[in-house]
Amino acid sequence: MTDRVTIVGGGLVGALLGVVLAKRGASVRIYERRSDMRKAEVAAGRSINLAMSDRGLRALEVAGIAHDIRAISIPMHGRVMHDVHGNQTYQPYGLQGQFINSVSRAELNKTLLTVAERHGVEIIFDARCLNIDLESASATFLLHTGESITCHGDVLFGADGAFSAVRSRMQITDKFDYSQTYLEHGYKELHIPAGDLGAFQLEQHALHIWPRHSFMMIALPNLDGSFTLTLFFAHKGATSFDAIQTKEEVEQFFAEQFPDAVPLMPTLVEDFLANPESSLVTVRCSPWVMSDRVALIGDAAHAIVPFYGQGMNCGFEDCRVLMECLDHTNEDWPSALQLYQRMRKPAGDAIADLALANFIEMRDKVADPRFLWRKKIESWLFSAYPTKFIPLYTLVTFSDDVPYNEAKRIGLAQDMLMEQLMDIGSVIEDWTSDEAKEAMNSIMSALPDIIIDSGFPD
Amino acid sequence: MTDRVTIVGGGLVGALLGVVLAKRGASVRIYERRSDMRKAEVAAGRSINLAMSDRGLRALEVAGIAHDIRAISIPMHGRVMHDVHGNQTYQPYGLQGQFINSVSRAELNKTLLTVAERHGVEIIFDARCLNIDLESASATFLLHTGESITCHGDVLFGADGAFSAVRSRMQITDKFDYSQTYLEHGYKELHIPAGDLGAFQLEQHALHIWPRHSFMMIALPNLDGSFTLTLFFAHKGATSFDAIQTKEEVEQFFAEQFPDAVPLMPTLVEDFLANPESSLVTVRCSPWVMSDRVALIGDAAHAIVPFYGQGMNCGFEDCRVLMECLDHTNEDWPSALQLYQRMRKPAGDAIADLALANFIEMRDKVADPRFLWRKKIESWLFSAYPTKFIPLYTLVTFSDDVPYNEAKRIGLAQDMLMEQLMDIGSVIEDWTSDEAKEAMNSIMSALPDIIIDSGFPD
Repeated sequence: MTDRVTIVGGGLVGALLGVVLAKRGASVRIYERRSDMRKAEVAAGRSINLAMSDRGLRALEVAGIAHDIRAISIPMHGRVMHDVHGNQTYQPYGLQGQFINSVSRAELNKTLLTVAERHGVEIIFDARCLNIDLESASATFLLHTGESITCHGDVLFGADGAFSAVRSRMQITDKFDYSQTYLEHGYKELHIPAGDLGAFQLEQHALHIWPRHSFMMIALPNLDGSFTLTLFFAHKGATSFDAIQTKEEVEQFFAEQFPDAVPLMPTLVEDFLANPESSLVTVRCSPWVMSDRVALIGDAAHAIVPFYGQGMNCGFEDCRVLMECLDHTNEDWPSALQLYQRMRKPAGDAIADLALANFIEMRDKVADPRFLWRKKIESWLFSAYPTKFIPLYTLVTFSDDVPYNEAKRIGLAQDMLMEQLMDIGSVIEDWTSDEAKEAMNSIMSALPDIIIDSGFPD
Repeated sequence: MTDRVTIVGGGLVGALLGVVLAKRGASVRIYERRSDMRKAEVAAGRSINLAMSDRGLRALEVAGIAHDIRAISIPMHGRVMHDVHGNQTYQPYGLQGQFINSVSRAELNKTLLTVAERHGVEIIFDARCLNIDLESASATFLLHTGESITCHGDVLFGADGAFSAVRSRMQITDKFDYSQTYLEHGYKELHIPAGDLGAFQLEQHALHIWPRHSFMMIALPNLDGSFTLTLFFAHKGATSFDAIQTKEEVEQFFAEQFPDAVPLMPTLVEDFLANPESSLVTVRCSPWVMSDRVALIGDAAHAIVPFYGQGMNCGFEDCRVLMECLDHTNEDWPSALQLYQRMRKPAGDAIADLALANFIEMRDKVADPRFLWRKKIESWLFSAYPTKFIPLYTLVTFSDDVPYNEAKRIGLAQDMLMEQLMDIGSVIEDWTSDEAKEAMNSIMSALPDIIIDSGFPD
């Protein structure tokens, strides 16, 4: 490939896309609105660490940097639930030792930028996108010098995030479907520092959750022994950010709701009052591809809420699938982009839905006895019938090739199946009894294997 | 009221809003992007005539110009359905002689502008909105002289249509929900000229429909004896605008589908090939009011598809309800605007849904025997139990005060009731029989009267 590719946005997805295209031989330029983060401080208010799962890692393998990133990640093998009395319960992610990885957003991005440059990608920082010409795939940027430049290329990608300038330009063309929908909940980041000698003050290899029904707090470990906490909370109302404004209100709220965390948070009040309250948006749009040569990727195409930990993973998978679409079409860009859209638009819609639904599960259901009972049965079904029952969480998080839309479809079918199994008298009485297992076995053995459609044409 | 009000947009709703606010004493300025239409030709591609129903007329009464507009309207008392063989069937809108009014969009708009000026409204034409400051309710416009001016006021309204500049400014603030969704169908306007001596070549006092399941054509009469036709048709696909490109294809398609209309359309081929193919969008957003002093109204707040003939009527009703909100709050703008939003946002969402659903009814169901049978039973129910059963079309079109969201709610309940009544054996056999009437009477007499919530606080 000798094409000239312009990428608007040098965040996680833009940088990875630059790497994988440059590795194919493309001449790639990335224009990034912010300064070079390798030289400057990271902007506050963005999430500090992320959960990387198998999909993200697979895309990093395509880029040849999975090993480097694994070295700066902390495996999390399960969830630790903290109840309102400070009691903890542990739920492993899988019986085969499945795990997700806590990784620093900033370190990951810096690594990707450096690898991109190593592959010959030219990165122009402090370049604000002023306009896009969709027909010619050219883009005009304002530089920090005050100068404006226009970049001409064969193909242009908008990898410029949830508030994409490229998408804004598309939005004012005829017949462009678009929606942005905010949750009533926002989030605020808080902090548990490392203990003595850099010791982790909570279980290191876990994602911690304080589920409180209408809100929740989570914590992910950092390499330096600290944890980054995120409080997901309503913007307004009786129990909300709006209602907690003073030092006393912060202290009282945390003492009531998160008594076990408070002693670990010496800067709680300062952090709470100083850190920004961020909002959570879902963005959907269609088409993702215009003029056969301009395309959206990552959050620019499908900004989702963070509750499945799949935002970055989905964006990275976009890059991996795009490479397969180029393979599939002998690098004919118009065909490759159409195929990419056909594969990824349903996937983006599905993970957006799943992420919204998982907020309910994380904040509410993980503390519900019936839900926990169901999880145990699901775990047994998965081990007994691994080709006939795969838990939704496994399909989304521990698969690196099941399209999200297929995961959603299979998950819905399995929801119905679980409701049926959980209605069997012997299962209600004791699901581990021989009678219950026999009843479930007779149903399961009659079911066909799960067939997953990769989405690629034959 | 002595407030200074800025209105962005001098279309139908902006002009009417100017009139009703000026009549209260406000100092009103309207900024309109286009030239003064009273001096220039109307832009092609916008609908030439509109169906004004009771809601629109009521708002015009508030403005004191209902009489003038009635004088330039043509009452339409029912629908004339044209089948593929040219056979016509007539469905009156109501047994009490209900009608809607075909009125020229351009004449209506010109009248409203003139009346606005007569009430002291200052109208600045050729003024393109460049920016809005939401906090100060000020707006900057580029004039055709190249000069840019900033207008400061107490309150600012975005009445600038489906592609509102005011709403675009709101959209980039945090937590603004927004969606634009295009139909797969678009439309093209066509023409039946007047006959000899200005004679109408189709029944004058009717809305004509050529329902064809996946598409349809409609016609509304004009004062000069002509009809404006609108073909609603898929943009792409086997049967679509895309598939009809040549003179021969146009002729063949119309000869097959609209044989009775073809002889009346001497410029069919030229019109079809020359007139623009327009798209149909539904826009929803929230909030409509920001900073207590900037508000959206009309299509800027709720662009809907035209299939219930309520776009203008809804925008005019926005103005009428806003005046009632000002009355209700002693002209306290922040309270009035909050009340306006609370009343009208659910109404806007409801008529958007109803308009989408009515496309199916108009193009498909009006030719369906079961639907026609149901309409007859509904008509009898309405005459026998006028406080217990009011057809949805009547609630939407022949009411001037039932909120659209209440109409939708009642319509859904009545849908279920009708399905039940139409399942009664004697009704299936002959709904006019004594036995059937008795069965229905026993159900209806047990039902309570319909209660409609005006939405206003007590």
